[in-house]
Parts: sequence; C-alpha cells; structure tokens
Amino acid sequence: MDERTPTAVLGAAGIIGQHFARLLADHPHFAPPLLVGAPRSRGARFGDLWTLAEPVPSALADERVRSPGPAELARRGVRLVFSALPSGRAGVIETDLARRGLDVFTNASDHRGDPAVPLLVPEANPQHLELLRRRRTRGVVVANPNCTATGLTLALAPVVDLLAPASIHVATYQALSGAGSPGVPSLAITDNVIPLIPDEEEKVARESGRILGTVGPKGIRRWPGDIVAQCVRVGVRDGHLEAVTVVARRRPTLRALLRRWTEFDPLRERALPTAPAPPVLVRPESDRPQPLLDRWAGAPASARGMAVSVGRVRWDPPYLRFFVLSHNAVRGGAGGSVLNAELVRSWLAEGSPRWGPPR
Amino acid sequence: MDERTPTAVLGAAGIIGQHFARLLADHPHFAPPLLVGAPRSRGARFGDLWTLAEPVPSALADERVRSPGPAELARRGVRLVFSALPSGRAGVIETDLARRGLDVFTNASDHRGDPAVPLLVPEANPQHLELLRRRRTRGVVVANPNCTATGLTLALAPVVDLLAPASIHVATYQALSGAGSPGVPSLAITDNVIPLIPDEEEKVARESGRILGTVGPKGIRRWPGDIVAQCVRVGVRDGHLEAVTVVARRRPTLRALLRRWTEFDPLRERALPTAPAPPVLVRPESDRPQPLLDRWAGAPASARGMAVSVGRVRWDPPYLRFFVLSHNAVRGGAGGSVLNAELVRSWLAEGSPRWGPPR
Amino acid sequence: MDERTPTAVLGAAGIIGQHFARLLADHPHFAPPLLVGAPRSRGARFGDLWTLAEPVPSALADERVRSPGPAELARRGVRLVFSALPSGRAGVIETDLARRGLDVFTNASDHRGDPAVPLLVPEANPQHLELLRRRRTRGVVVANPNCTATGLTLALAPVVDLLAPASIHVATYQALSGAGSPGVPSLAITDNVIPLIPDEEEKVARESGRILGTVGPKGIRRWPGDIVAQCVRVGVRDGHLEAVTVVARRRPTLRALLRRWTEFDPLRERALPTAPAPPVLVRPESDRPQPLLDRWAGAPASARGMAVSVGRVRWDPPYLRFFVLSHNAVRGGAGGSVLNAELVRSWLAEGSPRWGPPR
Amino acid sequence: MDERTPTAVLGAAGIIGQHFARLLADHPHFAPPLLVGAPRSRGARFGDLWTLAEPVPSALADERVRSPGPAELARRGVRLVFSALPSGRAGVIETDLARRGLDVFTNASDHRGDPAVPLLVPEANPQHLELLRRRRTRGVVVANPNCTATGLTLALAPVVDLLAPASIHVATYQALSGAGSPGVPSLAITDNVIPLIPDEEEKVARESGRILGTVGPKGIRRWPGDIVAQCVRVGVRDGHLEAVTVVARRRPTLRALLRRWTEFDPLRERALPTAPAPPVLVRPESDRPQPLLDRWAGAPASARGMAVSVGRVRWDPPYLRFFVLSHNAVRGGAGGSVLNAELVRSWLAEGSPRWGPPR
Repeated sequence: MDERTPTAVLGAAGIIGQHFARLLADHPHFAPPLLVGAPRSRGARFGDLWTLAEPVPSALADERVRSPGPAELARRGVRLVFSALPSGRAGVIETDLARRGLDVFTNASDHRGDPAVPLLVPEANPQHLELLRRRRTRGVVVANPNCTATGLTLALAPVVDLLAPASIHVATYQALSGAGSPGVPSLAITDNVIPLIPDEEEKVARESGRILGTVGPKGIRRWPGDIVAQCVRVGVRDGHLEAVTVVARRRPTLRALLRRWTEFDPLRERALPTAPAPPVLVRPESDRPQPLLDRWAGAPASARGMAVSVGRVRWDPPYLRFFVLSHNAVRGGAGGSVLNAELVRSWLAEGSPRWGPPR
Repeated sequence: MDERTPTAVLGAAGIIGQHFARLLADHPHFAPPLLVGAPRSRGARFGDLWTLAEPVPSALADERVRSPGPAELARRGVRLVFSALPSGRAGVIETDLARRGLDVFTNASDHRGDPAVPLLVPEANPQHLELLRRRRTRGVVVANPNCTATGLTLALAPVVDLLAPASIHVATYQALSGAGSPGVPSLAITDNVIPLIPDEEEKVARESGRILGTVGPKGIRRWPGDIVAQCVRVGVRDGHLEAVTVVARRRPTLRALLRRWTEFDPLRERALPTAPAPPVLVRPESDRPQPLLDRWAGAPASARGMAVSVGRVRWDPPYLRFFVLSHNAVRGGAGGSVLNAELVRSWLAEGSPRWGPPR
Repeated sequence: MDERTPTAVLGAAGIIGQHFARLLADHPHFAPPLLVGAPRSRGARFGDLWTLAEPVPSALADERVRSPGPAELARRGVRLVFSALPSGRAGVIETDLARRGLDVFTNASDHRGDPAVPLLVPEANPQHLELLRRRRTRGVVVANPNCTATGLTLALAPVVDLLAPASIHVATYQALSGAGSPGVPSLAITDNVIPLIPDEEEKVARESGRILGTVGPKGIRRWPGDIVAQCVRVGVRDGHLEAVTVVARRRPTLRALLRRWTEFDPLRERALPTAPAPPVLVRPESDRPQPLLDRWAGAPASARGMAVSVGRVRWDPPYLRFFVLSHNAVRGGAGGSVLNAELVRSWLAEGSPRWGPPR
Repeated sequence: MDERTPTAVLGAAGIIGQHFARLLADHPHFAPPLLVGAPRSRGARFGDLWTLAEPVPSALADERVRSPGPAELARRGVRLVFSALPSGRAGVIETDLARRGLDVFTNASDHRGDPAVPLLVPEANPQHLELLRRRRTRGVVVANPNCTATGLTLALAPVVDLLAPASIHVATYQALSGAGSPGVPSLAITDNVIPLIPDEEEKVARESGRILGTVGPKGIRRWPGDIVAQCVRVGVRDGHLEAVTVVARRRPTLRALLRRWTEFDPLRERALPTAPAPPVLVRPESDRPQPLLDRWAGAPASARGMAVSVGRVRWDPPYLRFFVLSHNAVRGGAGGSVLNAELVRSWLAEGSPRWGPPR
C-alpha cells in the first residue's frame, strides 16, 4: 500500500503546475498528485496540455485533468495541496482548503502578507514556521515567495549579518517563463528587452524584507534596510539572473564572505529529497552564472534546479557586487513549495506538536 | 567645388566604421570619407563588406577600401580623421596623425585617459574642450567615451547637481553590436545572457567620473561620487539599456527633475547636424524605453539614433531610479565622434582659435 | 483643398492596420485615413496603440480610433476602404461597403475565392482586374493574396512560361508578424521553430494557382501545375523567406531566366507611388536574400518593403532552385493592397471606365 | 579490472567531441576516453573547456586534454578512436590510425566517399558494413554521415521501397550547433535566418544517395532517384528540422506507410546501448516535431537524442509530405558514431570473422 501522503496540484495546466507535477510524479513522501485545472480543461489528457521542454512524467501523461472543489478534494482523501492558482483567485480557495484541514503549499501571492502564513525559503528562514501557531485554520498555509525574492534571499541569507547592509540594489534579467502562459508575445521580446514587470519591484522589496526579518512576539519584524529593485524581462526561457550590489556597513574579509556561502547548508541533517546540497554554489569562472548553463544547478538529481548560483563576487567596500541565478519556475516556484512541504513534514516527524491547535 | 572638409574613416570595415561611413556619406560639413581598412581588406568593394541592417550608402557602396599610412593620408589632403581602430592599436596611429596636423575624432579607448584629450559628450561636458590647450600636437585628438558611459552621463548631466549623489548604481543590458564583429557567438547568447563584458564596469566608472568632472588648472577633477556598475550582454542587436539608481543627498521635487531633463538642450543655438533636439527624451509610458522601439530616437532625421531615452522615473528619496537607453553604435560610437567634430568645427568658426598653438 | 481620395482603414490597431496607416499617412493620391477599430479601442489615441518598431506617423499619432459602421463611413464621405479586418468577420462588412459604392481593398481572405473579386498582385496578374465586370456591387472589392503566395507568385510570374513547371515545391520560413498580435508566444518560439501555420499550405497552393491562372469567359482558369507547400514559423520579426524548387518541363538557359527577372517591370509606365522599380531584385551574393537585410528592399523610398528579393538561383534541369524573400506585412499585406488601389486608380484614370456598371 | 575497450576522442574540445565524451563517460562496452585536442589546448582541464548546456560528465571534468600522435595512441593501448576532427585534417590521421590497427569511427567527411568505408546509419544500411572487406588497413574506418543526411535517411529507410520516389525534395531548418564553435556570429542570426550552409546541399544529396544505395560486387550502387536539397540556418541551438516532399511513383496507403515507420526497429535484437527503440517516432500532434520539444527523443535513457521524430505526414499522391527532426550533434554526430561502434562490436561478437584480413 502506498504510504505516501495523497496530494493534489491546483492549476496543474500552467507552467508552475506542470513543474509541480514533474516534481511529485515520483516523490518518496508524496503520492502522485491529483491534477486539478479550470473547468475548461476538465477531462483533458495531461500529456496533451504539456508545454515544458522537459518531458511529461510518464506516470501522469495519461491522467485526466479534473476540477473538484475544496469539499470534494477533502472527500477524496487529499491531505496536501500544492497551489499554482493565479494570484487573486487563489486566496479564498486556499483558505477554504485549510479550514477543511488540508495543508496548502502555495506559489500564489495572496497569502504572502498574511501574519499567520510563513513566507518560507527553508534554508533562509525556517524559524518563520513559528507563525503557524497563529493560524486560525486546521490545516496550514505556507507560501513560497516571488521567484526573484527567492534567489535574492537565498544568496543574502548566509552573509547579511556579516555585511549589515544599509541598502541592497538589485537589477534583474528575468526569464520568459516567469510571465506564465501564453505570457510575453514573441514580437514584444525578439531583439528586445522590456523594462517593466508589473508589481515585481514592490514584491521583491516587500517579500525579501519579510524573509530576512525576525520572528518576534508580534509576528515578523521585517529586515530594516532598503531593498531597491529594477526588474527587466529578457528573452531567456528559464532562469532569473540578478545583479546585486550591497552597500555594507561592516567590512568582513572576502574570504569570510565566501566561506559563509560555501559552508551554508542548514538543511543537511534533514535529508529532504528536494533540498540541494549545497544550496548556494559559488562559481569560480569569470563569466558565470549564466541562465543557460546554471539554471538546472542542484545535486542530488532530485534537487536539480533547486540550487542558486552566485558568481562574479567583487568586494570593494562598502560595495559588494555579485550575480545570483536561480531557476524561477523550480527554485522560485514549484520546487520551492515542494521543499517547503518536505520541511514541514520533517519538522512534524520530529515528534513536536503540530504547532498546537489553530487559534 | 566641394568646400566640405576632406575626411577619412579608419577601421571602416567594422561596425563602428560602417556607422561612420553612413553618417558621413552625405554630411553638410564633412566630405564623404576615404575608407581605410586593414591591409587584408585593401581593394575590397565597400558594399561587399557591409554588414549592417541599414542599407549601405549609395555614394560609398562602390568605393574601395584602402590602407594608406598617416603620411599618405596627410599627403592626400585629409584634414579630419574618424577612428574606429581597435583599442590598443589606435593610440600610436592617432598621435602620429595629430602630429601631422590632422584632427582626430576617435572611438578607441587609448586616449581616453590622456590629460590633453577631451573625453567629450557635447551636451554634457563641452567645457572639457579646454583641455585642447594642453595638447602637444598640431592637430587635436578628441575621444568619445565608452558606449555605456555615454548614455549614462547624458542622462545624469542635467540632474546631477540637483541630486548631489552619494553613489550611482548602474546595471546594464548591452547589445550584441557592442562586441564588434564577429563578436558574440550565437551559441553563447541564444536563450542566455552573459554577466561579463571584460573591463566594461571599470570603464563606465572611470569614464563617467571624468565626464561629470570639472576642468581646473591641473586638468580634470573627476566627479567625487561612487559609480558602481554591473555589465551584462543580452541578445539584442542594438541599443544599450541601463537601470540606474542614484542614491541622492539632496531632495529636489520630481517635477524639478523632469523639467531639467525636458528642458536640457545646450547645443540648440549651434544647429549642429548630428545634434538631437532634444538630446534627452523622457518617455511617459510605463514600459519604455525599449531597445527595439527607442534606439533610433532623435530628431531631425540627421540625428536619428543620437537621442537618449529616459523612462520609468521613480523617485523615492533618497533613491532615484530610472532607465536610460541609447544606441550604442551611433550615440555611443560613431555618431558621438561625428557630433564631437561638429562641435569643434562650430567652436572654431566662432572666430577665435580657442586653444592656441600646441605646447 | 485636399484633392486626395478620402480613405479609411478598418482594423487599424493591428499589425497590418498600422502598416496601412503608415503607408497612407502621406500618400499623394489618398488622404490620411480615418482609423477604424473595434469598439473596445474606440477613442484610443492611435499613437498609444502603436506597436511597430517603425515610428508612428506624426500626422496620425494623435488621431483617435473610431468605430463607425458602413453607413456612417459612407456618410462621412469615405470613398476608399482598406481592410485589415480579421478573416471571417471581414467578408460581410466589405460587401456592405461595396454595395454602398465604396471601393474596398482588402487583406482579409474572405473574398479571395469570389469569382468577381480579383486576387491581385499588380505586376503578376493585372489582367485579373477584368473580373470586376462581374461584380454585383457599385463599389469594387479587390483582394491582395496571402503573404506567402504574394512573394511566390511575384518570383514565378516572370519565368513561369519559360519553365512550364510540372510541379512547384515551396518550404517557408515565415516571420512572427505574420501571426498578428499578440501572435506567437515567446515561449513557443524561443530556441525553436514551429512546423505548422494553420491553413497556410492550402492557401499558398490555392491562391498561387489562381494568381498564375488566366482569365477566360467563365472566370479564372487556375494554373494547371501542382504547388506543394510546407510552412514553418521561425523566430524572425518580419520577412517571409521561401525555398522554391521548380520541377520544369522546359529547359531555358540560366541566362534567359535571370534576364526575365531583372527586366521584369510591367508597371513602369504607370509611375505608381508604391510600385517598386524593379519589383524583383536578383541578389548576386551567395548567402542572400536574408530577412534582416532584404525585407525593406524596394526603391524609391515610397516603395520600401515592396520589392521581393530572389537569390541563390541554382538551375540543374529539371530542377530550378531559388530563395525568395518578401516583407510579409508590407508587400504581402498592407502595401499590396495600397498598390492594388493605385493600379485601379491608374486604370480608371486612363479615361475609360474599364468595367462598366455592376451586374 | 575494466574489460571495456580503451578509447580516445580526437577533437574532444569541440561540440561533437564533447558529445562523444558525454556518451562515453559511462558506457558499458567502451572505457572513458582519452581526451585528445589540438596542441593549443594541451594540458587544459576538460571541465574548463566545456561549452554544452548539458553538464560535463563528472568522470571526465578533471581530465586533462592531451595531444598524442597516432603512434603514441597505439602505444597507450587505445583500440577504438572516435574522431571529431575537422574535415580536411581528419583523413590522413584516421588512415594512419587504421594502419596501426586501431578502429576509427568518424564524424569527419574526409572518408565518406571512400569505397572501403561504410557510410553507416545502423538502422538504415547495416549491410554496408560489407565494404569493410575491401579495406587496406588492419583497423577499420567507419563514417557517420552528415547530420542532415542522417535524419533524412532514417526517415526514408522504412518507406522508400513502398514509395519508389522519382525525386525527394528537402528544405532544412538547421541548428546553430551544426556550425561548430565559435560558429555563427550572433549578429548574423538574431532576427534572421541564413539561406546558405556551404556544401551542405551537395552533401545531403550525395550522402543520402549512397546510404539508400545497395551493396553490389563493385561496391555501392547509389539510390537512383534525385535528392534536391535547400539548406538554411535558423536561430535554434540544437535539432535539425527537415521539410521532406517525396514525389512517389507508387501509391501505398497512408496506413501502410505509418505502419512501416512505427514497426521499424531492425536493431532490436542486438540490444545496443545507444540504439533508440524505436528509432523513428511518429508524432500524432498537428504541430510536431519541434526542435525544442523533440530533439532529445529516444529511449532508453542511454539513447536520448538518438531517435528521429516524424510528423505532419500528409499523403496526397504522388506527393508525400512530412517533417523529420533529429538532434544534429547526437544522432547526426557523436551518437551516430558511437552507435556505429556498438554495431560493429556486436557483429564481431557474433563469432563471425573480422571481415577477413585487409586487402
């Protein structure tokens, strides 16, 4: 008998949904997901909706897309829901599911500001799981952040206390898959870049400040420095590159900074299947990271696309410059939430109470 | 009889050289250039070497590439030389030409640090022509800056005193034509961006600091703030986009900043053919400037590609964010030097030799 | 007083509509058009809807999009209508306009099979205007063919009788703008080509056969050979390239074939503003035509993008191979219909109404 | 002890060489190769030369590139040589190696016309191995064909006798990696396609005719029909797409054609590691094959990129149209030669004589 937790993916037909399906098709802890889509794709063969360049998982290719509501999902025994629903529509459904006792791991932005929802990057802010004590629902809701904020905070987490930044400046080179499907028209981007991704700069600043913040008695105290972002779409399929400049108030050695990155591996003990080891790769080459070459970074094989790659580290105090690259749809999307679910499962397995009853 | 000044273009077969030829083929003050290339292309029909998407000028298509040395150029009566020679090889030849009394306007970097050579962006630092008093050659050498520094300083010149920046952060999205020919291999850039342009970040900082500097009795006093650059190649044919964040010490109103940009037109009186009017266009749209749509900005027709476009101006003191776009091979290359030559000619035509004999 | 014919462009907000506007903004015979769009864009400033890389014509940038019906168009005095309406919706409206006495020149496919509508490429089949005698409406309807068929038939028209082809094989490399707006998603085409353009292969065969056909007492007798097409979308902004192989039954000399192409200029006498002279350019280089370099071919300036470029002519009897390139949205779209209108106007101006009253 | 055959890869630093290394790093029959490069890359760490988007095999990343001559290769005990040498330089070296008793499997074109060298596509013409009886060297030389001819002949082999073609017309959409490294400049191909690949059309015709030919007492009798090719470079990283039109003399049913393709699997019994099963995939979708989605086709995992994908089969007698896609650098390059070596090894293992002594 399959002892793996029964799961569902909401919004399975989209890019993030397909990545969820890919990651869950053969997962040691989670059973292959029920594929949930909008009514208009109900009954479609999943393999026929597939658009990723990676092959459709054979275990799911012949599955049909369904469109059950929250009550039916609960009735079918689903325990864990991965949500790739469009922001705006996701929130109400996710809350409904959590009320029914299902645990929700979501890529949507609706709950990212909710004081009882951890905005979680497992290696960066696992302590934010404490927020779950504040929840009002039987099930939990845990959100992964915006794709750009994910890469940024993973790169900053190991070094931010050493640097004590006054401000952090980030300019992005964001991939097409970040715009979903159909996304950016080819005529808009061929021989072009577009210096606007609506709301993205605000999200990067707001969410990164929260992730780097501390948990206090009144909830999250956001990180106090300024995060100043400029976000640009480029004609790359996958992989967000970010040019980061930290204006530092402290002056650690470059060696100390590099050691922090290379030794960073806070999840090692937990042996989570989707956790990359190490999570931050420092590239020694002069011209890396590059989206084409580094987006699938991450070992072991089950963590492909989950590591972030840092490179071109230049430290001219007070300015630390580097580039960071992450796979926006894997590390910054579906993979982020799968790892979140693995961390929660691991935490619960330690025998600790399920953060007590909801308030 | 043609009263226009006889000219030559050195390095005519390259991308910048072809733009020089395009701009000089039908110029009111300068005669169509002698086309000078490396010995290996000697005798080639210019039209057969042409690689730009813009059509080869009919007046030059059937001209042959020649390879005279400096002495022969002087003998042939050439007075004005536009140099698109590769940096490293350019310096000696340019000095030789200036010693022989020819005026040299160069896109090469060899002389950009020379204390007697103005690093000139006509609208931004015309007063730097004063440096010509220090020259030791009969002819003058005037350099246009690095393509990225050109766009950056043109955007900053009108507002830098209002802002009194502590630091300026710039991340670039640089076009393929900036790498010359053959340049970036297609396999390196298709579905990719490359976070390295050798020496570019240093050039942007060094040259922009000089252009924004003031002329004193001991030469240029560079602008005292920090310019922190990160430079990236993207898969765009032409047009460098730059994401600029100014960390300001003063707090002007946004209105004052915008007025500075829109009213900026210091060359208006001179009616230079290649001078765009106005030189800085402020785009009101939320998603501009874009390389595809804005690289050829500039009116009148003779100044196409000479204006820079500023957009997405966001002023959250102390952070001023904006994007600037310029045509790297026109405004940031050949067109920059043609405009430099027009300015020098105009200055001399005012009746007073402004810089006397060489030292 | 403006003696030019009052015009309107239907579907002005689309790619073909914008090209119509560009070509008519400053036309010697036709007045700047009334810009007609769907109700949802009514009142929008035309410049704000503009998406082409070519600049919006200043004469039209501040015009508002309107959405009058056929009756109102007639009432406003419009005489000539250029239609960029979507196929399927266009036919009924175009017929209504023609019934009211307006002349319609259309890029839509609805009337392309109509026995009273010339499917016209002025240089290739001007004699098809005879069909207008069969019309049942006061105004005329004249259609330009599918963009791929236009380039193909222009290249074939001068040589088809010399070759007497048994079959013609064509494989295409079609540009993104051919799919309209928003058109092909960037994720579908980046690092990819797509071997399907719905209905295109049938259109190319059917329409080319008609254009190359002869007018007889019972209408068009289509050209009797086989036209076998394979159509592919590639990641190019503008310009359809076609690889053509003619299986010939006759064996003219290569010289005779080339002379036919280079001497082809049947409209010369008429001096139509949008007619390129010559209409077929034979490129001598080994690697042309190329979309990037040749799509805007055509002289004089008013005929830019109206010439087709033929190259790599290889004659190994019975196989004649060549490439032909044409600007799909200009020659194969808006420009084609503008030239059609110029030809009709010229024909009428010869003093004799050539086609009498409607049946 | 490693019982696998000792191997070397010549030209290991190029694109095909890297694919050879990738395929041989962990092969059940062949030992990880000695990596041989030009003197200028001697001593370089292989991982530092790696340019493919696929990761460098960990077993070879730290190996150094060497540059032994043929004699030294023999002395080191190498038995099997895979050659990715540039055509023109390859022939002499390969013959020298074969004289010394090493078996050579080559991607270079120098020996493709040699009457004692099989031009081998294992599924299509295994009987051509008979030519090895004619060899004059102790070792054998076996060549894989041009990448475009490989895909074409694999698609044609199962159906050619059913169709009895009068002529075969093929137009190609060839990937950038086919041009090697540095290959096509980005400025030549961005927003463009290039209708010239030098010598390619001749190679496709000549080599395909040979592969489809029969072995007779006097050597190969080439296939008698005409193969008419037009070859174009497109901006795709990997995967050659070909639009094929067969002008048939017979009229099988479509069903019979499809059955031939789907049942085609002549190597099944041999269980070769790099042999895809099946070798020809017929895609049912209306818009496939596509380079992005189908280039890595092939099962099992060790045969990824080795299957060809056929799609859009349209049979309007006498014209059979279809598209075929193959990974040019794997199936059409390194993988082709690895499979050739596997087939030769399998054949020898049957106990049959090594084709007798050399003549």
